[in-house]
Amino acid sequence: MNIAIIGATGYSGVELLRFLQHHPHVERCHLYSSSQDGMALSQSFPHTGENRGNVLRKMAIEQIAAANDVVFFATPPGVSSELSPLLIEKGIKVIDLSGDFRLKDGTVYEKWYKRPAAEHSYLQKAVYGLSEWNRTEIRKAQLLANPGCYPTATLLGLAPLVQNGLIEEQSIIVDAKSGVSGAGRKASLNTHFSEINENVKIYKVNEHQHIPEIEQMLKLWNEHIQPITFSTHLIPMTRGIMATIYAQAKVELSLETLLDLYKTSYETAHFVRVRNSGQFPATKEVYGSNYCDIGIAYDERTGRITVVSVIDNLVKGAAGQAVQNFNVMMGWNESEGLKVAPIYP
Amino acid sequence: MNIAIIGATGYSGVELLRFLQHHPHVERCHLYSSSQDGMALSQSFPHTGENRGNVLRKMAIEQIAAANDVVFFATPPGVSSELSPLLIEKGIKVIDLSGDFRLKDGTVYEKWYKRPAAEHSYLQKAVYGLSEWNRTEIRKAQLLANPGCYPTATLLGLAPLVQNGLIEEQSIIVDAKSGVSGAGRKASLNTHFSEINENVKIYKVNEHQHIPEIEQMLKLWNEHIQPITFSTHLIPMTRGIMATIYAQAKVELSLETLLDLYKTSYETAHFVRVRNSGQFPATKEVYGSNYCDIGIAYDERTGRITVVSVIDNLVKGAAGQAVQNFNVMMGWNESEGLKVAPIYP
Amino acid sequence: MNIAIIGATGYSGVELLRFLQHHPHVERCHLYSSSQDGMALSQSFPHTGENRGNVLRKMAIEQIAAANDVVFFATPPGVSSELSPLLIEKGIKVIDLSGDFRLKDGTVYEKWYKRPAAEHSYLQKAVYGLSEWNRTEIRKAQLLANPGCYPTATLLGLAPLVQNGLIEEQSIIVDAKSGVSGAGRKASLNTHFSEINENVKIYKVNEHQHIPEIEQMLKLWNEHIQPITFSTHLIPMTRGIMATIYAQAKVELSLETLLDLYKTSYETAHFVRVRNSGQFPATKEVYGSNYCDIGIAYDERTGRITVVSVIDNLVKGAAGQAVQNFNVMMGWNESEGLKVAPIYP
Amino acid sequence: MNIAIIGATGYSGVELLRFLQHHPHVERCHLYSSSQDGMALSQSFPHTGENRGNVLRKMAIEQIAAANDVVFFATPPGVSSELSPLLIEKGIKVIDLSGDFRLKDGTVYEKWYKRPAAEHSYLQKAVYGLSEWNRTEIRKAQLLANPGCYPTATLLGLAPLVQNGLIEEQSIIVDAKSGVSGAGRKASLNTHFSEINENVKIYKVNEHQHIPEIEQMLKLWNEHIQPITFSTHLIPMTRGIMATIYAQAKVELSLETLLDLYKTSYETAHFVRVRNSGQFPATKEVYGSNYCDIGIAYDERTGRITVVSVIDNLVKGAAGQAVQNFNVMMGWNESEGLKVAPIYP
Repeated sequence: MNIAIIGATGYSGVELLRFLQHHPHVERCHLYSSSQDGMALSQSFPHTGENRGNVLRKMAIEQIAAANDVVFFATPPGVSSELSPLLIEKGIKVIDLSGDFRLKDGTVYEKWYKRPAAEHSYLQKAVYGLSEWNRTEIRKAQLLANPGCYPTATLLGLAPLVQNGLIEEQSIIVDAKSGVSGAGRKASLNTHFSEINENVKIYKVNEHQHIPEIEQMLKLWNEHIQPITFSTHLIPMTRGIMATIYAQAKVELSLETLLDLYKTSYETAHFVRVRNSGQFPATKEVYGSNYCDIGIAYDERTGRITVVSVIDNLVKGAAGQAVQNFNVMMGWNESEGLKVAPIYP
Repeated sequence: MNIAIIGATGYSGVELLRFLQHHPHVERCHLYSSSQDGMALSQSFPHTGENRGNVLRKMAIEQIAAANDVVFFATPPGVSSELSPLLIEKGIKVIDLSGDFRLKDGTVYEKWYKRPAAEHSYLQKAVYGLSEWNRTEIRKAQLLANPGCYPTATLLGLAPLVQNGLIEEQSIIVDAKSGVSGAGRKASLNTHFSEINENVKIYKVNEHQHIPEIEQMLKLWNEHIQPITFSTHLIPMTRGIMATIYAQAKVELSLETLLDLYKTSYETAHFVRVRNSGQFPATKEVYGSNYCDIGIAYDERTGRITVVSVIDNLVKGAAGQAVQNFNVMMGWNESEGLKVAPIYP
Repeated sequence: MNIAIIGATGYSGVELLRFLQHHPHVERCHLYSSSQDGMALSQSFPHTGENRGNVLRKMAIEQIAAANDVVFFATPPGVSSELSPLLIEKGIKVIDLSGDFRLKDGTVYEKWYKRPAAEHSYLQKAVYGLSEWNRTEIRKAQLLANPGCYPTATLLGLAPLVQNGLIEEQSIIVDAKSGVSGAGRKASLNTHFSEINENVKIYKVNEHQHIPEIEQMLKLWNEHIQPITFSTHLIPMTRGIMATIYAQAKVELSLETLLDLYKTSYETAHFVRVRNSGQFPATKEVYGSNYCDIGIAYDERTGRITVVSVIDNLVKGAAGQAVQNFNVMMGWNESEGLKVAPIYP
Repeated sequence: MNIAIIGATGYSGVELLRFLQHHPHVERCHLYSSSQDGMALSQSFPHTGENRGNVLRKMAIEQIAAANDVVFFATPPGVSSELSPLLIEKGIKVIDLSGDFRLKDGTVYEKWYKRPAAEHSYLQKAVYGLSEWNRTEIRKAQLLANPGCYPTATLLGLAPLVQNGLIEEQSIIVDAKSGVSGAGRKASLNTHFSEINENVKIYKVNEHQHIPEIEQMLKLWNEHIQPITFSTHLIPMTRGIMATIYAQAKVELSLETLLDLYKTSYETAHFVRVRNSGQFPATKEVYGSNYCDIGIAYDERTGRITVVSVIDNLVKGAAGQAVQNFNVMMGWNESEGLKVAPIYP
């Protein structure tokens, strides 16, 4: 099988290549770029090696469709919504890492993204690829909307509580911390080393476009869920997201009950690891890997539950989960091509 | 006036020296250490200069009392509670940067600190030195309990809301992020570079000893306040604390109302700077200085208020606020010795 | 006295303000910017405070000359070479932090900077402001060329060896490591956090424009000095330069002789601190301060001398040394406005 | 085949596990620890997963020999020199990542390491495992001394120049920069986050124990090589070594000649990648992988060659090269178990 990576000169694109070039069912990875036609990938990313023959091809739909079975989009907003329909019409499967197809309601998209939404019919066609909770639909997907980095960490952390109606519906607060690679490779003052190093910043307060994505899924799980508070902070590190999630328990609980619930919920989930009592994951413990590690606390003084969920934003939060969804779509083992341990320290 | 710094080989101690050595009303700074009698400070801290004559003296109470007017303790738990009474009996004023005298109730201290509390009468005698809100008492203090780093950022962020009864009393959640210098200079696996760099950790979940300190003050301001949720995260940076504070508004509010309230509340507070609408402070914007910068958001979707409060944990969170309290105690201008701009970038 | 800072929205500009706003002989600091006429400095740099009244003025030569006694340029290449002559004609003194006037030979400038040189007569008029070694000339300067960051660390480290003819003239190798703030505030892939964090890069190998600046001064001290090897590395930190300097001793020496020489050479230099035998400075030990700290080793196995010289690139390597030169030019104490201890940790 | 990792709770040990647990020819990895008998590895390293059954076993030589075919030592000095002979007598192959067997001359070891050397006969028996240049001997080795991190980067960078007699024999200067993980996992002030972050330090000036290791190999290649100057700097990052190597060309050369020489020298070396003209590697470009990337410059002004050689100190500088040597010893493909791309960014 041949696959295409569109947007190979971004961080998610080059991470896709890291996993797919050794994937046992992938014969060839073709790389496409809108601007660097004919250049070697190693000119943008010397770490990929000068002699690997990774050449960037021109983004011509006909040729992409002719040469590939599955196309991954790791592109800025608006690219995939335009090109995916053309590929799908030709029978190509599309896995979109951008946010173009994640929201079912185009008006919600336009409100939060402040740009035109994709075509309505394709928004409905798209399957939301939160691998652990949507496997049945993902298996049948032709257009897969790969979740955002923050929603992945948050939703995996909240799923057991929300699905089982254990928390007050208006009580969810998510305080998320992210490494800087989530902002991509485009240089800006906000990602300038001297501004970010030795610094913590909050950004897009109450305005992050991942809020409706999270709420959409929560409401599918439990229609009573109310709007959430979701804050995002930039941390002086490259990779990693920690979502610290707070919610009020509806009734008095015990930590043991909660841990049992989480361990059962994720029993068959290869990439979700629930920590034991009193243990909480750090972002570095999933570095470079597709794991989502989760720790839970219950405070008897306040009746509040704290869930700590960590991922590598470029792996489980982007390229890794995309490959996981690719595996599910193809009926392969979910961990094909993803059997890498976290790099520590 | 001569002052003593006990615990001069720790980070807070050496920061005290940075401010006090140029303080216009301080003639001499005497440094004391329990173990390094006769050694130069520059052996521990070469940045202080080999030729400055900063010699570490032996910790002998009689001599300390004879040579100094005010004594600063920047020591591990248990040192100040033992030595301060001896100094106070001799008429010396004490400013304690440790947590020994912050909690009025010894049993609460013993529960959270898991060690014996200071003598009851001294706990009552001690004045809690949150400079901006306790000036009247601080002026008369002989034993000053300098606030913890997290409580300083949190209490300055919450004061206007709590004092004015604007928020649901059981709704306070504080998600705090701290640089590593708060853990002091003692080497441990938790402060080992390779473990902390490119990493975010949560620690002491629901168990941090600063929780009762915060709650004690909140309840003094508003007796209806319920137990809070307070989480602490270690960030891969040396200095800085950001407290992201969430609380539910009792009635519908506007951001303008909130900003007005904060700007009025801190109108005469030299070291508290309230950001304008839509602006939020980053920790680096107070680096090395005694400022506490505050930004506020109100989310109409949820009726929730978000307050972002940042300090340099070693300055406003320790040595700087101690000097500020020293100034208040002596009747001087609050900013004497503290007129340093943040270092940026 | 009133002073002007041209280029106040860059890192060196805002550092100049940090030192000059508390300078005992400066009444007013006027800030100028080519593009942000009328805006508050706090919009670019919130750490400076919203209520300080630091407004950016338009860069109009007449008004600048009318309102100021001394003008500091902290501007990109080419600005000062154009504007300084106009100011000097009006009797204003100019301190230029850019590289426009550092090289006496315009053809050398054009070769290394790859842009047109300043006017010949002004190149000759300009005084090179390596404060410790050029005081006599600096006192009389009307146009002061403030040294580059790398040359400052390197020349202070080499001066005693070169002036006294102790080393083989063709043997000098300087391996320099710098924090990222030296690249300024303009965003680029080379200063993008995710590219720089957890990384070391070498750049401009054998091509750095500071090479001729260093060689020009070395040859003034000792005409036999041959071309040097000078390498620059980008380190994942914001501030600090370490120059590790290697040179072959002409005759067998002892470490004691070398330390004596350095201590004597810098006996009256307030801002140069020579470490004792076996001690070497780290960049953090001068953080935020105007010090240059130096350590020396002599290897009997090879007859090679190693000198380690560290500065804060934005202070002694830019704004701090500019203020030091300002003090010398005005006949004041060299440390006025610069009495800040390094911030540690 | 079963293998043993002794010292599995250190950084090199856990990196060995990362590579060996997926190695196609390894059936079982047994982990041994001197102190944590019976404990799960996940208690020390949560990133390895709680459910992997990685249990730490007691260090009993009989059982180790009975259960394993090859034993890897990733231990502090002195452990391997004591235990390896016992294993070798039983026919077990040993790969030692410590420095115990790297130097042929015990007196040299004792001078630089300041501790007793291993037994003379075993020092002679040990094969130095610089994979690229010692394959023939490594194939026959029963006791393999895996090179140090600094020597690996330095020797791979110098080999073509030294073997071909292109440089002045007394002119070699190596300025090396290392991430902090090279210091291991033991907490100390020198690896304390607040001391290392935003800092560069030089250490062990002219005294590093890797100096004789480098010189021993250089002299085997070219008996005329004189003592070298070798400096080591601690950089605020976790992984990565850059060796910037300076040497004087014997005759005038061209960059093309040098690049040809290096590309030819490493034509069949899977893990050495020579950059093209004008390109230099950064440490992040080999992060987590077994590559050594090399860039070369020639300065016509000075006749000096600069070689830049980068590795991941825990991979090519420790565990990765050990696995590479394991492959060579067993007659397998050199890259088995090591086919991981660098993680970028």
